[in-house]
Amino acid sequence: MRKKWLVALLAMVTVLAFPVGAFAADGPTNVQLQAGLNTAFTFLAFILVFFMQAGFALLEAGSTRMKNAGHVAGKTILTTGVAALSFWALGFGLGFGNDGGNGFMGLTGFFMSGTDAAASFDSLSALDVPITIMFLFHFAFAAVSLSIACGGMAERAKLSVYIIFGILFSIVIYPVVAHWVWGGGWLGKLGMQDYAGSTVVHLTGATAALVATLLLKPRLGKFNKDGKPNIIPGHNQVYSILGVIILWFGWFGFNPGSAVSAMNDGFFGYVALTTNIAAAAGGVFALLVSWMVYGKADIPSMLNGVLAALVAITGSCAFVAPWAALVIGAVAGIVTFFTAQWFERARVDDPVYAFSVHGIAGMWGAVSTGLFATPELVKVTGVGQAGLFYGGGFTQLGVQLLGLVGTFTFVFVISFIILGAMKAMMGIRVTEEEETMGLDISEHGTYGYPEQMKLVAEAEKRSGIVN
Amino acid sequence: MRKKWLVALLAMVTVLAFPVGAFAADGPTNVQLQAGLNTAFTFLAFILVFFMQAGFALLEAGSTRMKNAGHVAGKTILTTGVAALSFWALGFGLGFGNDGGNGFMGLTGFFMSGTDAAASFDSLSALDVPITIMFLFHFAFAAVSLSIACGGMAERAKLSVYIIFGILFSIVIYPVVAHWVWGGGWLGKLGMQDYAGSTVVHLTGATAALVATLLLKPRLGKFNKDGKPNIIPGHNQVYSILGVIILWFGWFGFNPGSAVSAMNDGFFGYVALTTNIAAAAGGVFALLVSWMVYGKADIPSMLNGVLAALVAITGSCAFVAPWAALVIGAVAGIVTFFTAQWFERARVDDPVYAFSVHGIAGMWGAVSTGLFATPELVKVTGVGQAGLFYGGGFTQLGVQLLGLVGTFTFVFVISFIILGAMKAMMGIRVTEEEETMGLDISEHGTYGYPEQMKLVAEAEKRSGIVN
Amino acid sequence: MRKKWLVALLAMVTVLAFPVGAFAADGPTNVQLQAGLNTAFTFLAFILVFFMQAGFALLEAGSTRMKNAGHVAGKTILTTGVAALSFWALGFGLGFGNDGGNGFMGLTGFFMSGTDAAASFDSLSALDVPITIMFLFHFAFAAVSLSIACGGMAERAKLSVYIIFGILFSIVIYPVVAHWVWGGGWLGKLGMQDYAGSTVVHLTGATAALVATLLLKPRLGKFNKDGKPNIIPGHNQVYSILGVIILWFGWFGFNPGSAVSAMNDGFFGYVALTTNIAAAAGGVFALLVSWMVYGKADIPSMLNGVLAALVAITGSCAFVAPWAALVIGAVAGIVTFFTAQWFERARVDDPVYAFSVHGIAGMWGAVSTGLFATPELVKVTGVGQAGLFYGGGFTQLGVQLLGLVGTFTFVFVISFIILGAMKAMMGIRVTEEEETMGLDISEHGTYGYPEQMKLVAEAEKRSGIVN
Repeated sequence: MRKKWLVALLAMVTVLAFPVGAFAADGPTNVQLQAGLNTAFTFLAFILVFFMQAGFALLEAGSTRMKNAGHVAGKTILTTGVAALSFWALGFGLGFGNDGGNGFMGLTGFFMSGTDAAASFDSLSALDVPITIMFLFHFAFAAVSLSIACGGMAERAKLSVYIIFGILFSIVIYPVVAHWVWGGGWLGKLGMQDYAGSTVVHLTGATAALVATLLLKPRLGKFNKDGKPNIIPGHNQVYSILGVIILWFGWFGFNPGSAVSAMNDGFFGYVALTTNIAAAAGGVFALLVSWMVYGKADIPSMLNGVLAALVAITGSCAFVAPWAALVIGAVAGIVTFFTAQWFERARVDDPVYAFSVHGIAGMWGAVSTGLFATPELVKVTGVGQAGLFYGGGFTQLGVQLLGLVGTFTFVFVISFIILGAMKAMMGIRVTEEEETMGLDISEHGTYGYPEQMKLVAEAEKRSGIVN
Repeated sequence: MRKKWLVALLAMVTVLAFPVGAFAADGPTNVQLQAGLNTAFTFLAFILVFFMQAGFALLEAGSTRMKNAGHVAGKTILTTGVAALSFWALGFGLGFGNDGGNGFMGLTGFFMSGTDAAASFDSLSALDVPITIMFLFHFAFAAVSLSIACGGMAERAKLSVYIIFGILFSIVIYPVVAHWVWGGGWLGKLGMQDYAGSTVVHLTGATAALVATLLLKPRLGKFNKDGKPNIIPGHNQVYSILGVIILWFGWFGFNPGSAVSAMNDGFFGYVALTTNIAAAAGGVFALLVSWMVYGKADIPSMLNGVLAALVAITGSCAFVAPWAALVIGAVAGIVTFFTAQWFERARVDDPVYAFSVHGIAGMWGAVSTGLFATPELVKVTGVGQAGLFYGGGFTQLGVQLLGLVGTFTFVFVISFIILGAMKAMMGIRVTEEEETMGLDISEHGTYGYPEQMKLVAEAEKRSGIVN
Repeated sequence: MRKKWLVALLAMVTVLAFPVGAFAADGPTNVQLQAGLNTAFTFLAFILVFFMQAGFALLEAGSTRMKNAGHVAGKTILTTGVAALSFWALGFGLGFGNDGGNGFMGLTGFFMSGTDAAASFDSLSALDVPITIMFLFHFAFAAVSLSIACGGMAERAKLSVYIIFGILFSIVIYPVVAHWVWGGGWLGKLGMQDYAGSTVVHLTGATAALVATLLLKPRLGKFNKDGKPNIIPGHNQVYSILGVIILWFGWFGFNPGSAVSAMNDGFFGYVALTTNIAAAAGGVFALLVSWMVYGKADIPSMLNGVLAALVAITGSCAFVAPWAALVIGAVAGIVTFFTAQWFERARVDDPVYAFSVHGIAGMWGAVSTGLFATPELVKVTGVGQAGLFYGGGFTQLGVQLLGLVGTFTFVFVISFIILGAMKAMMGIRVTEEEETMGLDISEHGTYGYPEQMKLVAEAEKRSGIVN
């Protein structure tokens, strides 16, 4: 009797279970659906980071002079193109290819075909996003880092420098640092926390920018003979402002996209939250500080504050509480305000503040997780340990400092060798005459604003009022 | 014998069902996948609405004068930062926190941590999108509403007004109205239809803009002593046009994103369809009307027509048929054209037409569902009843009118108290001298276009041709 | 005994299988989830393609003169609005409605309601994306094609031409070609490979632009009496550069979005990869060629190179290897550089190079799959055969040539009839006086840059330096 009941029960249960299971299994599997969703999400992140090039083009063009506007904006497309080809050919393999245990750089996956390349990238194999999308995402990061580096060259470097340095940066500089932290290299193994690249992307680009600005020397007229700096204002704040809004927008790909997943209870949303709080705090506090110091609420300072905060939170966005994000962003905005002035007093002419905004704030971002990383979020991300203020002691802080010192040293030395050799062999700066007439004419043969420059030329003839 | 067959059948069925069920269950569940998809979709909507700040910055800077361009564009970043911090600290809790039944405003969920905050937001608990993303989505709405409000202050308000009013608007004005309709408050309980915020976002912002423009008084030179208005054209139509394209683009986050889901047979796509038809009709009809009235096809009128149509369809996009969307958009474009002229004749100087575009069209949007809501779509959305033209009688129309009158009255009174007190205590307008030299210099100490303003200054010295 | 064991085993398996299956089936089915994901993905693609209008507005405004800037940018919004309404009313049905076997154009699905329209669109019924989203995606394509067509009219066509031609293009030109290739028409049946529209979108628009530029005749001052061309530089390279970055960004909707699915192991990512490589190669190679030919690295040439490469890879992105994408892009960039000069020597004044960039490169894109299509990718896409270089012989090449000749001929003839009739009946060009004063004034009554044009007017009075 019991057996009969059991069989009847089994029959009922099976009849119920079968259509349910079969129904669920029609179409792709859940694993395939998850992969599709994560792929679409990471693609969205890629295009947002790609679009940051529009932000850099506008920010830099707006922060420089009319006679250089076409050149400054146009070279952004050029370096993006150079990075796309170089990173596809060699950079991606050096960054994310298998390193055979050397911990320094990858050695597989060059000229990737997109169809059979996954085995060459062990560091990405835990992800369910196809290698093509991971390539594009990391190319966009490399291109951002290169754009930051080129910021230090503005208004005086030859066009050819952008091409040659762009190729080399995309192959022997950025990929190496990326490998160290994200590609299976030694810093990643030490547990360095750099969620979306305060160090890997921003400090790397900014350190190259610093080398460039040191080797190129200041722009004509930036410093008087007594060393006093002159202000060379950018020609269009609306461009710069639009550029910063685009960068803030793009950062929602940069940081949340580094989750490479839309699942995990929407953890990427938490990353977006801390990112946004930091950016807001950086802008508001930098503006207020400039108001106190200058007596006027300075717009470029506010813009630098937003960006510095975004740079700092880039590394720590997934590790810190919202209140800590506010503190990290505010400190980044304030510190960058003062370091920008300090570099100017030190006679370093960094036209678009690349080293202050991306370098100093990048360092602060690296340090900040060593202070503010919470045990809960360290568990979620699975990287490193809690920070000093959360009972983690000095361990993580030490790793972070090691990472930033190692990155700064490596990038500084290699950039110095490359740009120093270029300076010796081919020259990296336009002539004084070319710089005075502007790089639109000297490098490209046409003004970016031909009609407006006629008015300027006419006015100069009359009175020499426009520099 | 029968039992043998049954056992054999069960065996076969189970063998078939087991791998199917097991296969489907590998990876996340379907509920988790749906949540992941809806989260990614709502995140996309958030970033689109966030990006609308670029649209506002460009539209407003383009619609005002060169001497104010940096200020007008730059304050958009400032108010976005202020809104982000204020809405995080208090606004989100007041808007979407639990109100304990008061129906007026929420009382929980302040300074939300992102990790354990869901229980404080009952009004959002039916959604499968994490609270962090819902916060960001609603912050972006609040920031849009604030940008609309600030439009009424253009070219004459002190910078400090944007900070102080921005904080208060993000805490005591916008969240209250949002709570009434979307946060579990009294208007939502009455069945008010406002899918994406014709009333909540646009009318609220526009009413504050109206108060600001009334208290600030017209710009110098806007009206002659006899009351005749002068045209003060914006300095850059390309900016304004780009701004409107960005806003139209961003509206695809605003309206379809308010579905907070990519499922439901893609209902958000229907919302995108009506949104797009309305925007197109608004722009085309406003241009044609301006052509008939002025004898010239006026570009700013076309831009206002696009925006007014988008504002009107914001509330009704999920409730009306495509043909009705065309009518709603066309009427919005045409009405706004005439009301903009009417306000000018009434000596109200609303520099970027904030109240006509967002207020009048916002009211029309609220009314429009009371007329055009179809029974089928009311069933899909589950909000309110069919409109007058679809046999619903005057019930829904009455609710809509109550909602817009209630919102207008509340926002007008509170804004008047806040801005009136600020006017009495600290002054809200720059001096005549400052207004004449421009707010770039007076509020920030540098021109937004330093090189071009040198040409303007030189020309003024010669002949006083530029105002 | 055996039976007992079997029953026990069945019981165990069923108990295990039931919750697994039931768990998976809670929430939507996998088929519904896949549809939701593909819908969200295609929506993302739509908004990216829609945003390309911002790119066209900036590229064209930047490439023309200050006195026409508001007009050139503003008419982009106008034609987008006209396309939205016309394509909704009639175009979509003509393009993608059921043709009853005529193979020429669809005959169902006009004024689509969005709710019950799917049966009218058999050509789209294999997709799991709702008809509303497919409409929006194809509307965005039609609007891009129209914007390309209008590029040939720049700086001299009357505003009314954009409205009337815009309506007719969106109804009787673009939809017919789209039907031929994508809507179930004769070219699709022959196996023509045009993944995202090198032919359908770009060659169609560009051929109409060629007709327009031929019928309108060159701009005043473009050619001397002896036929020598003068350079009429655009007024703002920063706009053009920003426009090209936006277009590159938008192309990630255009090409990968044409997968209409985020599944299939992320095949859309492969499409994005080839698209990006081609764009980079087109820009870099065009710049280098201009440097060799002119002695200066010409920015407009680089911008045209990026766009031409994107146009060419549009058709072939899903059919070719990454190295072939590099070749296709580089060739597109170089060829366009020389054809642009060739058209100018032939006294064709195509102000924004619409026919070179979208027409010549569109043809090259059509041809390129006939050369480079790989057997593997042909299998994935399921369209046509492998190309000449992959052992496919001349078959596919022949189909591609037939497609481009058929498209060119049809669009040329119909455009010629339409614009020729308009020229005879109403005139399509502004007067010489109007062209000299600029279309901002002649067509719209206000300058796009009123303050700057005052400076220009003053300078002209003094010395006549500005044209």
